[in-house]
Amino acid sequence: MTKNRATKKLKVMMLGGLNEIGKNLAVIEYEDDIVIIDCGLGFPDDDMLGIDLVIPDITYLEKNKEKIRGILITHGHEDHIGALPYVLKSIDAPVYATRLALGILQNKLAEHRYDMYPTLECVQAGDTVKLGAFTAEFIRVNHSIADACCIALKTPLGTIIHSGDFKLDLTPIEGEMMNLARLGELGNKGVLLLMCESTNVERSGYTPSERTVGASLDNIFMRNKDKRLIISTFSSNVHRVQQIINTSAAYGRKVAVTGRSMLNVLSAAIELGYMDVPEGVLIDINEIKRFNPENLTVITTGSQGEPMSALYRMAFSDHDKVTLGPNDLVVISATPIPGNEKLVNKIVNELYKKGVSVFKDSSVEVHVSGHACREELKLMHALTKPKYFMPIHGEYKHLAEHKKLAEYMGMEPQNIFVSEIGKVLEIDNKGARFNGTVPSGRVLIDGLGVGDVGNIVLRDRRHLGEDGLIVVVATVDTDDLSICSGPDVVSRGFVYVRESEELLDEIKEISRNALQSCLDNNMTEWNQLKSRVKDDLSKFLYQKTKRKPMILPVVMNV
Amino acid sequence: MTKNRATKKLKVMMLGGLNEIGKNLAVIEYEDDIVIIDCGLGFPDDDMLGIDLVIPDITYLEKNKEKIRGILITHGHEDHIGALPYVLKSIDAPVYATRLALGILQNKLAEHRYDMYPTLECVQAGDTVKLGAFTAEFIRVNHSIADACCIALKTPLGTIIHSGDFKLDLTPIEGEMMNLARLGELGNKGVLLLMCESTNVERSGYTPSERTVGASLDNIFMRNKDKRLIISTFSSNVHRVQQIINTSAAYGRKVAVTGRSMLNVLSAAIELGYMDVPEGVLIDINEIKRFNPENLTVITTGSQGEPMSALYRMAFSDHDKVTLGPNDLVVISATPIPGNEKLVNKIVNELYKKGVSVFKDSSVEVHVSGHACREELKLMHALTKPKYFMPIHGEYKHLAEHKKLAEYMGMEPQNIFVSEIGKVLEIDNKGARFNGTVPSGRVLIDGLGVGDVGNIVLRDRRHLGEDGLIVVVATVDTDDLSICSGPDVVSRGFVYVRESEELLDEIKEISRNALQSCLDNNMTEWNQLKSRVKDDLSKFLYQKTKRKPMILPVVMNV
Repeated sequence: MTKNRATKKLKVMMLGGLNEIGKNLAVIEYEDDIVIIDCGLGFPDDDMLGIDLVIPDITYLEKNKEKIRGILITHGHEDHIGALPYVLKSIDAPVYATRLALGILQNKLAEHRYDMYPTLECVQAGDTVKLGAFTAEFIRVNHSIADACCIALKTPLGTIIHSGDFKLDLTPIEGEMMNLARLGELGNKGVLLLMCESTNVERSGYTPSERTVGASLDNIFMRNKDKRLIISTFSSNVHRVQQIINTSAAYGRKVAVTGRSMLNVLSAAIELGYMDVPEGVLIDINEIKRFNPENLTVITTGSQGEPMSALYRMAFSDHDKVTLGPNDLVVISATPIPGNEKLVNKIVNELYKKGVSVFKDSSVEVHVSGHACREELKLMHALTKPKYFMPIHGEYKHLAEHKKLAEYMGMEPQNIFVSEIGKVLEIDNKGARFNGTVPSGRVLIDGLGVGDVGNIVLRDRRHLGEDGLIVVVATVDTDDLSICSGPDVVSRGFVYVRESEELLDEIKEISRNALQSCLDNNMTEWNQLKSRVKDDLSKFLYQKTKRKPMILPVVMNV
Repeated sequence: MTKNRATKKLKVMMLGGLNEIGKNLAVIEYEDDIVIIDCGLGFPDDDMLGIDLVIPDITYLEKNKEKIRGILITHGHEDHIGALPYVLKSIDAPVYATRLALGILQNKLAEHRYDMYPTLECVQAGDTVKLGAFTAEFIRVNHSIADACCIALKTPLGTIIHSGDFKLDLTPIEGEMMNLARLGELGNKGVLLLMCESTNVERSGYTPSERTVGASLDNIFMRNKDKRLIISTFSSNVHRVQQIINTSAAYGRKVAVTGRSMLNVLSAAIELGYMDVPEGVLIDINEIKRFNPENLTVITTGSQGEPMSALYRMAFSDHDKVTLGPNDLVVISATPIPGNEKLVNKIVNELYKKGVSVFKDSSVEVHVSGHACREELKLMHALTKPKYFMPIHGEYKHLAEHKKLAEYMGMEPQNIFVSEIGKVLEIDNKGARFNGTVPSGRVLIDGLGVGDVGNIVLRDRRHLGEDGLIVVVATVDTDDLSICSGPDVVSRGFVYVRESEELLDEIKEISRNALQSCLDNNMTEWNQLKSRVKDDLSKFLYQKTKRKPMILPVVMNV
């Protein structure tokens, strides 16, 4: 006998994107069917030394492989697709995304190897996909990347709307405005659960249209007709790049592009028809010498101050094609992501040293956000009128503020679920509640290693990085209880050795005494010898220097 | 025969505070006399792992000790006095400062030992001090710490004005407005050189009066009569603290204070008469349980998110006196210094998790800057009308913008000197010009070590921190060309050892082969053996993991 529908449960859990920025991954499960929405990466915190990327822990998905009917992608940003190259190695499920997101994803997959190449399915806004007990509908939203969608997932218990990342742009550069009508229609029919992004919940009003940047650019181009223009922005912001190209064309400038990711996205976007470049405007970066500076625009990566990005290399005279000087104006068409302010600053100072003009008139908007501000979030709530609400994509403060916003819109507090990664929201015909957790967390990627760096390794890295290292090596003869060779001392990251010979001699002396005193007392266990050396040295060094280098005693027997 | 006055030269050099924020130190030299203005510390950059503080390189001062007539302090902030405890160990010169700065300095000196306790001379605004060929006059300015001055230094060649850090506050909380009249008077008599701070040169208009914060506080107190208020600000901002106390008293609240530096500055400020606390308002933090939350204000450190500050500990439930909850409102009366945004964010998220309200209405000003905005800088230039100008206290972009501002005020570009630390500006009756340099740089402080950590140690720390370490130890017999023991492998910060036994075995194997192959070819030099092991292992590990751990081979002979 099959279960009564009343006892069948819908489970909603986030494996990333709650209490953190990035690594967005939502899991929606009903009986034997699982659908995943987005599969993104995060960037390491400052204390994750040496870590390249962070992806979600997908233990739960690996254990329930056979249930997974598909992975739905809302748009092609790293924090929504970046974990796919790793996840698809153990999860064999079709990926559904719009063309641009798939184009970017294919570039990434090409850098990895798969036993079986993943199944990629191209969809467009308006499409529906049947996935087991679910039907997913892709609905147009606006965002800082072309062809972004939110998703309406019909489940046996009702419709879930997952906003993806969105803003409302009444005058989009290309493509259509966010499909408010469809969201309203679904709202009128009844929405069970709204999962809505929270990035800009602290900002009042509406996010300006991408088109306002075009007007600002026009202004800059008009006032700087005598200068070469270097404009830096996010490579994935196809519409921004389109506007820079359009304005350049209007002012009779050729456009050259530099920076690997910018070139990649540009060629994908042109090939897939997301961009429309007037004939003859785009030139190769190698050709720029053929044109007068005032007839040139250079579009570049590096708007976040990334070391080794094209803009960084230009600023530090390390770019082989573009040499900057007083005849150049650099426009940074982006806002630093928190934590990147100092990096951007570093570039700006170098540009000033070269006499380069840097555009920084705060009254002219050369960047707009891709995320909904408070009024747009209210619009989403007003249209969808959900029974339940889960704020997603934000730090705790964002989720908490978004809850308040939903209450302001009239929702009952008990119908709003501020969740955590791994926490299971269970919905059935009787109601909704948190019930249990599944494994969740972060998997660190360092070089080719996925998950082989954990807390212990990170703790050691921090210790080594902050305080450096002292290795003490000695060979002992445990039969006649004597030190045969050493102790030798090797130090790195502790003090400048050449100027600290006396200190190093003292370290040797203390190590020798520690070892000999153990041997004299017939203590010959490795651990005894090592921990004695370690303790004596730690005490001595802390007293002498107020520092705590890592001490590694290595004792060998002949 | 003494030199003709026409050939006598005035030298002006900064040993810190140019192209950087902090470690401000100006040196002014005429023949056999040197005067120092300020002697501050800087905070380490993100890549200076394990470094506590940074102070200026004072090699030049140490070499010219006998010429130094005095150290003039403009105000008591760390970046103006923080290097004194170190510098006074090798430089024996009297320090001249106003009472509050001296009070703070004495606290710092107490943590150090001196062969001879430094000579500290208390001055007040309006005082003049004769220092060899120079006469220094302390002139009142406004700033975010009480009793700040700028300095007019009369030299045989004319008057130098050093602005210190300043703003114009027409309605100061205590004490007087910046002495515009005296600056104007000096300007009318003729100013040879203006050295003016550049912190806020990118901001238009005027910095609001400290008093505007009082109005905002009143608003917050009025609207939150049912809550306990926790207010976090800079401990040195005595006037801010005074306003919080005043407003608390007006609303019938008792005030408790927590955080070591807050308690230190508060007691110094009260003792020295900088603060006026109404009878019975201040209570000990241990007494707060005796009062209703709505009758309490807690003033705390931690406005920059500093780990282990009182606010941080409250947020993470680690403060033994204050337990926060939904009945508390936290006001952060400060702006994060660039680089501290994430730290402050961390605290705010924790406060939200506790249900604490956090004040963040951006329309109400709970903090104002202590530095002059563009119009105030213009005022300084307009009053002093200097012959020459050197922008100080700023990154390169600030100095360059300040130069532009001076040009806008009518100065000739050739009379403006954008300098670097160690660069000597030479002035005589014929004019002014850069001429040569003196040693300059940064001395890193790590624990008790002053200057024993340099670039090599930092490079090693970064390497160890990012990639970890592999130590390979072996004993060889160079007579019969065999390996006696080992190779043993110790790894830290590279991979989690328990899960990587296979990899560690491979590392041993490769090391053994490398050693044996050297020995087989009669290569028995330590360096040959070590570099062979290092090279073979590096190659193997990079190919296998795309990582580059530090490899330390230790080879011993029996």
